[in-house]
Parts: sequence; structure tokens; C-alpha cells
Amino acid sequence: MKIDKFLDGLTVGYDIPALPGMREEEIVTPCLAIDLDMLESNLKRMGDYTRTKGIKLRPHGKMHKSADIARLQHEIGNATGLCCQKVSEAEAFVRAGIDDILISNEVRHPVMIDRLARLSAGGARISVCVDELEAVAALDAAAGAHATTITCLVEYDCGGKRCGVISLTGLLDIAKAIGDAPNLSFGGIQAYHGTMQHIIEYEDRRAAALKSIQHANAAVEMLLVNGIRCPTVTGGGTGSYEFEASSRLYTELQCGSYAFMDVDYGRIEEEDGRRTQRFGNALFLLTTVMSTSRPGRAVCDAGLKVQSIDSGLPEIHGRENIAYVSASDEHGILTDPHGQLRVGDRLRLVPGHCDPTCNLHDWYVGTRHGRVETIWPVTARGKAF
Amino acid sequence: MKIDKFLDGLTVGYDIPALPGMREEEIVTPCLAIDLDMLESNLKRMGDYTRTKGIKLRPHGKMHKSADIARLQHEIGNATGLCCQKVSEAEAFVRAGIDDILISNEVRHPVMIDRLARLSAGGARISVCVDELEAVAALDAAAGAHATTITCLVEYDCGGKRCGVISLTGLLDIAKAIGDAPNLSFGGIQAYHGTMQHIIEYEDRRAAALKSIQHANAAVEMLLVNGIRCPTVTGGGTGSYEFEASSRLYTELQCGSYAFMDVDYGRIEEEDGRRTQRFGNALFLLTTVMSTSRPGRAVCDAGLKVQSIDSGLPEIHGRENIAYVSASDEHGILTDPHGQLRVGDRLRLVPGHCDPTCNLHDWYVGTRHGRVETIWPVTARGKAF
Repeated sequence: MKIDKFLDGLTVGYDIPALPGMREEEIVTPCLAIDLDMLESNLKRMGDYTRTKGIKLRPHGKMHKSADIARLQHEIGNATGLCCQKVSEAEAFVRAGIDDILISNEVRHPVMIDRLARLSAGGARISVCVDELEAVAALDAAAGAHATTITCLVEYDCGGKRCGVISLTGLLDIAKAIGDAPNLSFGGIQAYHGTMQHIIEYEDRRAAALKSIQHANAAVEMLLVNGIRCPTVTGGGTGSYEFEASSRLYTELQCGSYAFMDVDYGRIEEEDGRRTQRFGNALFLLTTVMSTSRPGRAVCDAGLKVQSIDSGLPEIHGRENIAYVSASDEHGILTDPHGQLRVGDRLRLVPGHCDPTCNLHDWYVGTRHGRVETIWPVTARGKAF
Repeated sequence: MKIDKFLDGLTVGYDIPALPGMREEEIVTPCLAIDLDMLESNLKRMGDYTRTKGIKLRPHGKMHKSADIARLQHEIGNATGLCCQKVSEAEAFVRAGIDDILISNEVRHPVMIDRLARLSAGGARISVCVDELEAVAALDAAAGAHATTITCLVEYDCGGKRCGVISLTGLLDIAKAIGDAPNLSFGGIQAYHGTMQHIIEYEDRRAAALKSIQHANAAVEMLLVNGIRCPTVTGGGTGSYEFEASSRLYTELQCGSYAFMDVDYGRIEEEDGRRTQRFGNALFLLTTVMSTSRPGRAVCDAGLKVQSIDSGLPEIHGRENIAYVSASDEHGILTDPHGQLRVGDRLRLVPGHCDPTCNLHDWYVGTRHGRVETIWPVTARGKAF
């Protein structure tokens, strides 16, 4: 409860949704609540797995955006360092004491390249991805200007079709240029395939992962043939991590959503065809019923202002026969055919997609056994640069 | 440029995306930019319309969430007061000097009812909606405890199927209870139909609006027959306002999106079957191309962290042959069949849905003739209580 000392003078309902010690029913909604038991269980489970497999875990901070959770991932979840997608996220985490950060993304804006170099010069271990040759000179110049060395990984497109160099010769050229740059250090490759994480059927997901790993392997081999060793091969997510961890190629996993889970990741299936139970729902959007004027329906206070529905609507946790069927800016429409709901009833929604939902909130309310135990700021909320 | 004095010491790229005086190309992306000429034109246009029609305009603050824009709506756009959806939004606006606010929504949480009464006791003109009889006693008690009077409007469901009482007898009971409550004042009815705003075909939208107005008329008549006059009949949005304004029933419009517009509202048609040109796009999501490693495609820096895609993907403003085709958390995928795009190229996206997109940002960058003229905070960003 490291933040408790800052909470004096804050007012529930204006600044924050709850204060430590409150009963769960007193929390002002809508807000994000974390089941701390489940969060810890998820972190330990992934920690144990990566320890057993002998693979590094660099969890993705873009998911939770919380320095407190990043710290917990290091304390109990076998984490080494953190991933971020943006320089401004990294700045927020470095300020909060997390000092080994991979920007798992390209940084091309001159202002942000400069800030990246400043972060490195300030003493943090910073690495960043590169997917075009032209980026190398700009990163090298900034690192030189701030008398620091930045570690660069080449992002290789192993099938995700987002960023990442697609040709092996292009990859080699960039790796060589990084190696030749006086103020850069070649760190290896990033080979992350985002879309395959969400393939529901296990065999399909496995096949996509193995194909992606094959691509990454070809890239590493080609560099090796040309005398370039990859200290780090980083990638993997909550949908695919077991395949990368068993590949004998990847040295580091970047999973993020395993800590919280969401409806989208809850859909993916294990080998036995059942929805995954490996990690449990630790993140909930607390909401309250605010109108029941129309029979068979109810309106709750959680709409688009507090959740992203890009990957589908939320599910209602632990309740039968009611469903969340549509969202407007400030309202959610619930079907309630048996007329169970009353104004003031509280529900726990499992968000459709955790990352952009967390980005809408300033606070996490940490609960255990029906009590508020802690309040954590969403440290890197809105850090989009 | 009222906020300029606060900008000293803030740093572009960490705290804010731009500073006044910068050229548009220097703005750090992704961020929201407002075309100030177009904003002013939109505000004046709706101002002139409502002045001509002799109907009050109480613009919806939940759209822009900006005290600066609310002030401009009063200065040049014929606005009287403001709508908010949440008490915490109203608090932010009252602190910024806007002192006549209708919470166009139900408030049922005891903490927030208390804060509503405090806001009223502090001198702001506060009104709020009620759709269930049980709410009346709680509002009356809070107003009494703070020695103030709160104006209550009954929300009547004229077809929107969200909040709002659905029976005329229910409406009468609530109106009477408000009238009888010592610390409440009956203000009239709110009859707002949200979903019809977005009906594309003009005749279909008109038919839905006329039906909705008919419902609202029946409600007002029934109250009158029972000796209750409605000082205010409030409702209407950017898709339907001309119908309410011509109804001789509504006394007040609640339009919000007309100030900025978005892709969704840009689709609705005028009487001649053409997409509406009545209000222009004043809100843009500025983005920069950050990777072109795959032929025929490009990646930009605007994903789900900076926009809500609940009503569809953004459109690219003023460019031919390129399209925004998918969004992940921090990236947008663009198709670029003719290979026009280069890393560093800047694009203006028109957001799919303005309200939840604005809620993701801390700042608006106001531009005119290619220069940054002002920076406005998103005053009520994240105010969900």
C-alpha cells in the first residue's frame, strides 16, 4: 500500500473511487477493481512457468500501465525488466523506479528519439526496435548527443503484418548498420506476432505459432551465417507463450494480458478444446444499476467512457440470466428477462479487451475478501507519444 | 489563449503535444487537433439557427469535455448553460466557471447525490433527471441537508429505450412527487432519443423524430391536463435538432457533436439524399507514419489508445487512395496501394466517434492557418462518476 501516504485529502467520488479499508459495496462506480488474490496467482503462475522453462519474462507494461503491478511482477512473478510501446510510457515507468525497459516498437519522431536517448543517458537500461535502415542514423546521433549507448533490436515481421522488416537481406543490412554505429549496440531481434494470439482453436493457434517461430528461426540463422549472434530473441504473448517458450529459439517472453485476462483472451482454447482456465480474471469493471424503468431490461453506469469494446462487449461475472447487450457513452444496456435487477445492484464486468480499457482510468482499486486493500494509479494512462 | 500562462515549464512530448506558436508539422503525434476556424463556424451556425428558431441551446459538454469550448459556445454560439452526463463532469465545469448545468441523466449513488447537492449549494444552477419515484426522496433529502433547491426534470422515454419512465401514469406520479418535495423544483421533462440521431436516410430519421416528438407531446399534454406545466422540454441532438426545433414543443436543444463532427455523424443525409455538409470536421486525430516496411501498406501511430472505434474506423482527411483499415492498441494499419506514404508523413484522421475519442486525451491543440494558436485541456476527461 505504498501510495496510502498520498491519499490524504483526496475525496471519494471526485478524485478517486475508493479509499483503503472501505467495503467493496462503498466503492463509487464505474471503476476498475483488481482481485488481488487472483492477480498474485496469475503472476506466480507465469513466474513458475518461465522459471521452469528457463526463459526470461519481460512483461508488457502497455497492458496494465501500472508501476505498482510492474514491481509486483518483479517481486513475485520472475520478471526481468518491462516492455513498453511508447517513450512516454517508458518515462513514466522509469520515474517510478523500473529501470530496464524495452520499447517493443519503432520510435521515429525526432522529439521522441531525443527523449529516448535522455532516458538512457539518465541511467536506465533502454532498448528499442528498428525496422528500417533510415532509423539507425537518427538513433545513433541522439545517443551520441547524450553520450549514451542505446541497445537496438531489429523487429522482424514473422507474420503479424504490422511493423517489422520483411526481407532477410533487409534484416541483415539493419543489423550490420546497428553493429557499425558507434553509439548503438545490437541486441538481437524482436519477432512478435500479435494477431495469432487471439486464434481461438488450439491447433490453429499452435500451427500459426510454429510457422511464426520458423520465420524467426530463419532470421536468426541467417544472421549467424553472417557472423552476427542474437543475444536476445524476444516475443510471445498470452495466447502463444508456451510455443515460444518451447522453441529453444526465443530467450524472452513479452506476455502482458496474463496478469488481468479479459473476455477476448478468455475465449482461447487449451489443447483439450476447453476455454483456457490457466489464468483467472483479476480485472473487473465495477458498475451499478441506475435505471430499471423498462421491464426486462436495466441500465448500468458503465459505457464507452470506461471501457473499450473493440474486441467485443463485456461479460457479467458470476451472474446467470443477465447480459450486457449494448454500450453508449455513459450507459450499458442489460437484458434481465426475470426482473432480477434493482437500482443500486452492483455488477462485476469482465472487460472485452483489457489494455485500452485500463487506458481510460486513473485508478485501480485493489480488493481482497470484500475490502479495499490498496489504490494504485494507472501510472502510464494516456501516454501515447 | 487563456491557458498560456500555465504552459511555462511543460515539455512538448512528455506533458503536452505542442506549444502555441509552433508550426503544425512540429506537433508531436498522436494527438487531437482542432481546426479553430471550422469550430467557430460550426458554433456560429448552430447559434444562428437556434436564434432564428427562438429555441434555447444547451450544448452537451459530454462531447468535448472542455471548459474553453463551453465558454466559446456561450460567447459566439448562442448557448445558455451546458449539459453534462455525470456529477463529476459538472464539478469540473463549475470549477471552470460554467454555472448553469443540466445533468441530462439519472444520479442514484448516494455519494454522488450528495455531491450534486453540494454543487447546487455552492451557487451553481443545477438540474438533474429522474426516471423512478424512489429517486425523489433521496434527492430531496440531500438538497435539504445542504439547504438548497435542486431542479428535477422527469426523463421520459420517447423511444430511445435507455433511461426514462415509459408510462404516462408513472411520469405523472414522479412529477407530482417532485412538486411536493420541499427541496426540489419541477423543471419539466427531458425527452431525448439517442439512437435515432444516427439513422442515415433523412426520411427515416425524420419519421423517427416525429414519432418521438409525438410521444413527448402526449407526455406534456397529460401533465397539463393534470394541472402541471412544463417550463422546459429538453432534448434533440445533432442528427435530429431541426425536427425538435420545429416542433413548437421543445424549449431547449442538447446538441453536442455539431461542434466537432465525426465519421458517424458525417454519414447522415440531408433532405436531398447527400451526406450532411451542415457542419464541418473541426476535430482531427493527428498521426504520423512510423513504418513502411511492407509494400502497399503503412503503419501509423494512432491506435486504440487514442481513439474509440465503437462506431467504425476513422477516415483519412483530404487524401486519396489511402485508407485506415485496422487498429491495434498503439498502431493503425493503412493501405497504400500506390506507395505514396513515407515514414514521417503526417495525416489527419477524422475520428469515427468524437465523444469517447476526446475522453482518451488530456489536450486539444487548437490550430489556425498551419500554426498552433492555443492548447486547451480536456477539462472533464475521465470524469465517469
